[in-house]
Amino acid sequence: MIVKVKEPLAAEYGLFRAGQILFTYLHLAPDRAQTEALLKARVTAFAYETLEVDAELPLLTPMSEVAGRMAPLMGSFFLQKRFSGTGVLPAGATGTQSARCLILGAGVVGAGATRVAHGIGMRTVVLNRGAARLRQIDELYHGEVQTLPLTAGNIEREIREADMVIGALLVPGGRTPVMITRPMLKTMKPGAVIVDVSVDQGGCAETTVPRTHDDPVYVVDGVQHYTVANMPGAYPRTSTYALTNATLPWILILANGGVEKALADFLPLRKSLNLREGKIVNEAVAEAWG
Amino acid sequence: MIVKVKEPLAAEYGLFRAGQILFTYLHLAPDRAQTEALLKARVTAFAYETLEVDAELPLLTPMSEVAGRMAPLMGSFFLQKRFSGTGVLPAGATGTQSARCLILGAGVVGAGATRVAHGIGMRTVVLNRGAARLRQIDELYHGEVQTLPLTAGNIEREIREADMVIGALLVPGGRTPVMITRPMLKTMKPGAVIVDVSVDQGGCAETTVPRTHDDPVYVVDGVQHYTVANMPGAYPRTSTYALTNATLPWILILANGGVEKALADFLPLRKSLNLREGKIVNEAVAEAWG
Amino acid sequence: MIVKVKEPLAAEYGLFRAGQILFTYLHLAPDRAQTEALLKARVTAFAYETLEVDAELPLLTPMSEVAGRMAPLMGSFFLQKRFSGTGVLPAGATGTQSARCLILGAGVVGAGATRVAHGIGMRTVVLNRGAARLRQIDELYHGEVQTLPLTAGNIEREIREADMVIGALLVPGGRTPVMITRPMLKTMKPGAVIVDVSVDQGGCAETTVPRTHDDPVYVVDGVQHYTVANMPGAYPRTSTYALTNATLPWILILANGGVEKALADFLPLRKSLNLREGKIVNEAVAEAWG
Amino acid sequence: MIVKVKEPLAAEYGLFRAGQILFTYLHLAPDRAQTEALLKARVTAFAYETLEVDAELPLLTPMSEVAGRMAPLMGSFFLQKRFSGTGVLPAGATGTQSARCLILGAGVVGAGATRVAHGIGMRTVVLNRGAARLRQIDELYHGEVQTLPLTAGNIEREIREADMVIGALLVPGGRTPVMITRPMLKTMKPGAVIVDVSVDQGGCAETTVPRTHDDPVYVVDGVQHYTVANMPGAYPRTSTYALTNATLPWILILANGGVEKALADFLPLRKSLNLREGKIVNEAVAEAWG
Amino acid sequence: MIVKVKEPLAAEYGLFRAGQILFTYLHLAPDRAQTEALLKARVTAFAYETLEVDAELPLLTPMSEVAGRMAPLMGSFFLQKRFSGTGVLPAGATGTQSARCLILGAGVVGAGATRVAHGIGMRTVVLNRGAARLRQIDELYHGEVQTLPLTAGNIEREIREADMVIGALLVPGGRTPVMITRPMLKTMKPGAVIVDVSVDQGGCAETTVPRTHDDPVYVVDGVQHYTVANMPGAYPRTSTYALTNATLPWILILANGGVEKALADFLPLRKSLNLREGKIVNEAVAEAWG
Amino acid sequence: MIVKVKEPLAAEYGLFRAGQILFTYLHLAPDRAQTEALLKARVTAFAYETLEVDAELPLLTPMSEVAGRMAPLMGSFFLQKRFSGTGVLPAGATGTQSARCLILGAGVVGAGATRVAHGIGMRTVVLNRGAARLRQIDELYHGEVQTLPLTAGNIEREIREADMVIGALLVPGGRTPVMITRPMLKTMKPGAVIVDVSVDQGGCAETTVPRTHDDPVYVVDGVQHYTVANMPGAYPRTSTYALTNATLPWILILANGGVEKALADFLPLRKSLNLREGKIVNEAVAEAWG
Repeated sequence: MIVKVKEPLAAEYGLFRAGQILFTYLHLAPDRAQTEALLKARVTAFAYETLEVDAELPLLTPMSEVAGRMAPLMGSFFLQKRFSGTGVLPAGATGTQSARCLILGAGVVGAGATRVAHGIGMRTVVLNRGAARLRQIDELYHGEVQTLPLTAGNIEREIREADMVIGALLVPGGRTPVMITRPMLKTMKPGAVIVDVSVDQGGCAETTVPRTHDDPVYVVDGVQHYTVANMPGAYPRTSTYALTNATLPWILILANGGVEKALADFLPLRKSLNLREGKIVNEAVAEAWG
Repeated sequence: MIVKVKEPLAAEYGLFRAGQILFTYLHLAPDRAQTEALLKARVTAFAYETLEVDAELPLLTPMSEVAGRMAPLMGSFFLQKRFSGTGVLPAGATGTQSARCLILGAGVVGAGATRVAHGIGMRTVVLNRGAARLRQIDELYHGEVQTLPLTAGNIEREIREADMVIGALLVPGGRTPVMITRPMLKTMKPGAVIVDVSVDQGGCAETTVPRTHDDPVYVVDGVQHYTVANMPGAYPRTSTYALTNATLPWILILANGGVEKALADFLPLRKSLNLREGKIVNEAVAEAWG
Repeated sequence: MIVKVKEPLAAEYGLFRAGQILFTYLHLAPDRAQTEALLKARVTAFAYETLEVDAELPLLTPMSEVAGRMAPLMGSFFLQKRFSGTGVLPAGATGTQSARCLILGAGVVGAGATRVAHGIGMRTVVLNRGAARLRQIDELYHGEVQTLPLTAGNIEREIREADMVIGALLVPGGRTPVMITRPMLKTMKPGAVIVDVSVDQGGCAETTVPRTHDDPVYVVDGVQHYTVANMPGAYPRTSTYALTNATLPWILILANGGVEKALADFLPLRKSLNLREGKIVNEAVAEAWG
Repeated sequence: MIVKVKEPLAAEYGLFRAGQILFTYLHLAPDRAQTEALLKARVTAFAYETLEVDAELPLLTPMSEVAGRMAPLMGSFFLQKRFSGTGVLPAGATGTQSARCLILGAGVVGAGATRVAHGIGMRTVVLNRGAARLRQIDELYHGEVQTLPLTAGNIEREIREADMVIGALLVPGGRTPVMITRPMLKTMKPGAVIVDVSVDQGGCAETTVPRTHDDPVYVVDGVQHYTVANMPGAYPRTSTYALTNATLPWILILANGGVEKALADFLPLRKSLNLREGKIVNEAVAEAWG
Repeated sequence: MIVKVKEPLAAEYGLFRAGQILFTYLHLAPDRAQTEALLKARVTAFAYETLEVDAELPLLTPMSEVAGRMAPLMGSFFLQKRFSGTGVLPAGATGTQSARCLILGAGVVGAGATRVAHGIGMRTVVLNRGAARLRQIDELYHGEVQTLPLTAGNIEREIREADMVIGALLVPGGRTPVMITRPMLKTMKPGAVIVDVSVDQGGCAETTVPRTHDDPVYVVDGVQHYTVANMPGAYPRTSTYALTNATLPWILILANGGVEKALADFLPLRKSLNLREGKIVNEAVAEAWG
Repeated sequence: MIVKVKEPLAAEYGLFRAGQILFTYLHLAPDRAQTEALLKARVTAFAYETLEVDAELPLLTPMSEVAGRMAPLMGSFFLQKRFSGTGVLPAGATGTQSARCLILGAGVVGAGATRVAHGIGMRTVVLNRGAARLRQIDELYHGEVQTLPLTAGNIEREIREADMVIGALLVPGGRTPVMITRPMLKTMKPGAVIVDVSVDQGGCAETTVPRTHDDPVYVVDGVQHYTVANMPGAYPRTSTYALTNATLPWILILANGGVEKALADFLPLRKSLNLREGKIVNEAVAEAWG
């Protein structure tokens, strides 16, 4: 059995062979070359991203949490003047206003961002579609974090005041909706920073383009964009532990019982299975390449 | 009257003339050239750093607070793997250990660092000489921040576990004692980061060398050093407001009443006065250059 | 010995006689009639308001605390639409902005107001002259209450956003400075409410006129004013206990040891003594009526 | 399409016509006149109060939250002595007992009341039928709010100590059970205040009679009753935003897709639909007037 | 109807007779004598421990909560030196490390233990199988309680540092898995204490043997074991109220409506029913003794 | 130099000789034998208990803190039914009342007791003479701990409701006043427990008699008394670290500079000095045995 934390690289395709079990992030639907390589090798491939328990995707959650908690730290750094930031210390100082942080989305990413932004001392506003989740946040922070429904009007009004905007909108299996339009940038404070965690799904800003850890920011209309793909890679010690916590139980099931028994006993693994001995068994992948 | 936020630059010496009142950071004792220039111009010079109220230095406090709160944010950024950091996310993630932050000193700098480090979610330990201040911190954080006396033994034991160390030891008017020795670095986790806020007073690590915002870090024995002189300059919007909050009342006193009346009415200004019409009136400066 | 909680009423003057000890609020300096009545009766009169311990006035503190904590509750009520209030619920609701509360002063009154305003869930801003007290508040509320220096500029900017303004400026023995000018009212939200706790010292708004509990509010330029003199009288059960907690130890000293011994042993009582057997022994009273 | 926040008034009946979509609070079951008017006009009428998602009524929730958070503020005001209140300051003062607040019910109304009552500083006790919800409150407030099962015995014992009682019992679609009987009033502290938020469903006190914002309180057996129907109307700015947050997504669905498609796609709207082109399609309304 | 809080004693068997309803903890599966006595007497016996609502066992919950909250208090006492404890004060002192508490399991028992351990001021670590529950704890305590997945590796590493270990692993209807092996004890600090709340289900330490309140602790390999069966009996006033809160509604249903109607109306009672007029109607009991 | 943590034992007297420096707790005033032994040996003896800095006794503080935090843990244990306690779990359970804890005194002992009692979840009431300290506690706990002035009346009323009473009254150098009289015991709940931390100064209960860790409790009038002398000895690991933190700086001063220089430079050591080369140099000791 092969366990990885990223998709197989092209250089690794030659290593696959029939009978192997592969358990990792796959993302086959947009990746024809990989799909074909794995089919050809007749590998049995389970994907982290389609393992589903109670309508949640527990092998995506740890990475979302890490990225969410990381986002306000990245944004804080780039608010420094030498990066043309607004020059407002996120934590503020006695007798001054702390920075204002606008978080779009209150799922796992948004919850992680909220906790760290609030902990640093920023004036934090969270926008979310569902009211029930906003009510939980309101309860948990005793009203110290402001909640608002996620509407274009609210974004337009709030984005003018923000030093930091965190894009935390993730749609399971789909493209993040674009909520921050180009014209909005012109209304923002010069030097404000957008940390777009949803970059891996296309980004929630019209101006989002994926970047790497080595070259993480760029400026459009005076607004910095931090749009690093695969953010959790910055803190691998935390990310690896967090991911392994989630994957280990499934690895043990596969390793101890074998594929046949694992699929019989555990429905989530059936959803996780993408390829089986040369055949596509996942609907979305079949639709793309079948 | 001239109000500045930094010492006069050499290029500005020619602008001074008799009768002027200068109110800014001066730091004359180690700076012969500046002392002589101001004496020659017969400027009346008040120094922020010697204005004293109730044994405190209220015009240093705001900058200390900004630097203290800023320190954990700088350290957090450089814990990323691409800077050879430990790769531990300061806030941690569910099911993993958060980063461990060791703060040397619990004055204004240390208090600011403690609040943000704890707010981010780091496991925070504060070392301080005075027990009374530790007791206050213990009370304020309900024991969630660990306190220890500042001894070589405690530093030696704790520094091994730390992902981040914040040097927050400031001695009014003197050199910071060196508490982190070179041999200690070898016992630290590879990739740990020292943020030495006391760099402006010589630094509390043996290996501290002042750096600038453009080139803020360097590595010794596998340990990163963030040792930017004048840290608060990174967030000028916050720093300027915080400093002006503190200086404005004194500026108004000088501007409205004149030097004579101000000195008669306000003892703190008498301590602030360093030079008067060509004469050194501050003891430390006189000892250095008189 | 006579212990009261308010100044003697004119109707009671006839009851005084030589040899009596009177211990109550007196406020003799602005009240000639009362001064003369007590002098004539040769009463030994101690005033609550001049009893001083460590530069504090411990018999004024309890009433200040009650008035301060009460202020946000009064303001909350009058924000209702039927009083032409702004119609913003102080606690807000999930997905809406809570009311904004501006508190002028961070002494005992301001601290009490801050705690209840923050507890209700208002977005709270505290302005104060002294930075040290602001730093304490910043520490105590972990930055969730915003602090600003008390300047005309800050008031002007913040008052535009406020639903509620609490005047908590008290100058020991003097007149409260007027910080809210008439022109500022026109910049406020229609229906905002000013609760001027400093009304007993003249008020910190130009438009403040004392009112009673039966007719507590009036409107100027669209802004409601709650300016009840002697606010703590509204909750006598709490006020009486709080005041008695503070006065009882002194009453016991006077009752058990007699005036002579009490004055010999306790310096604060010497400051409290205003009249002694027909003579004015307090400087301020002597200056007024001597 | 017509969107309202209250039932249509008789004066408006003439404005209805076939083909219109009405989306508002309707409460048709007890209102024959309105039902007939709408049937006759062949209006398609959706009711806020029957729109159901996951066994919750999301268009009632915002109003419940506003009323719940508002209740302790109303009660606080009427505890003043001039309304014959108990004269206990809800927040208390150092060295005195704060007011005691008894909350019947821990649904949305009770949760809102609990947060503000606790925030003000009252000693708060929450009674509820379900133990699971009490456990959540116990966890959220770390035990600082006391929880008890909602039984007649517990009410009898606790109501004697209470300065304030908040009736927060709401039964979806039914009459609130009467839990505070007339004899209980005689055991209460004179001047205590009952804020009966459940008045719109008949009230949880035997002595509850609906009142208006202009005349909100009356006294029975020495106990004040605040029993204003439609409490959220007092703070319309907050209420309107909160309600619109909840209704807007459904309005957009109806406006963009039309009734046919909306009903096909969204089950909650099918529950919300009461009348369709002259026919009653809701069971409870049909039972009443069909 | 007979309501009890413990299984019937042998001495009471003679008191049973046909037609009686018995509602109490029964635990018949491992107890043949009792099963036969009740069958013979043709008693209708409902068991607390099999009453099930929404996959929870609400009549077990209160006792679990009491035991969980009690555990850190018991452990704290036995950390005293005179019991050969580690001599670390659980709350620590300013400038020292507080005790470290390891909690295995985050169900009702673990949640109760976490709250009190954290409240006392211990450095608390919670291990649990499910990540979702860990995420809730992380959120509720803002990261101040550390969370880790429940794996042998994590236990092995953490148990070395622990002053106190709380066994809070309960498997509904089954035997607790043994997670603390004998060899692990040797790696623990001498004087550390294990409070094994799961003793009633066999215990989660290999070395757990049930004890009584009169003789609650014993030492194995230098590690104290507190393994009292039926812990909640130590605080009967709290336990009785907590249990009665949960049982009373069901007692009223049985008392008011009779067995027939109660079973017809309430599914949970059907699960609770173990014996009916001389017949075993519960599957597990039937399997054991049928 | 000899450093100890307890007074010299009789068995050790023979070990003393001229020229030695002794630095430990001495308590010579009530102990003639020890005084004479040390005088005869011409030891230079410094006492921890008379070392004074800013009117505080910093070498007593750590032990007071330990004893204070320990007290609620001891009381919690003895509330168990098997010790005839009230049987109320200090932390309570959902739906029940937690135990009530009455703390007499808000100095270092009282502050420590308050923190742990509140942390456990007890309903906590603190009585203190000084109002300023009560205000601090009220602020620190946001009103969740009730404060009351320390009067006989308040004790009488509150002690009836208490499950636990903590005596935390310590008078520097004197006898604790007796505040809990024998008749008060009869009004207490049967099984309530008094933890009298002030036992070392005579105790604040009339019925207090010193006990040892081996036999810590006894019952008078149905009320348990925990009155162990030298409570911190129970947790020596914490106590030793805490004490050493405080003594070490002074030990270094004595060891590095010698007695002469130490006395010249450090006023607190002059107050600490009790005996010098055969002569009594402390006033209180001289008064007793001079």
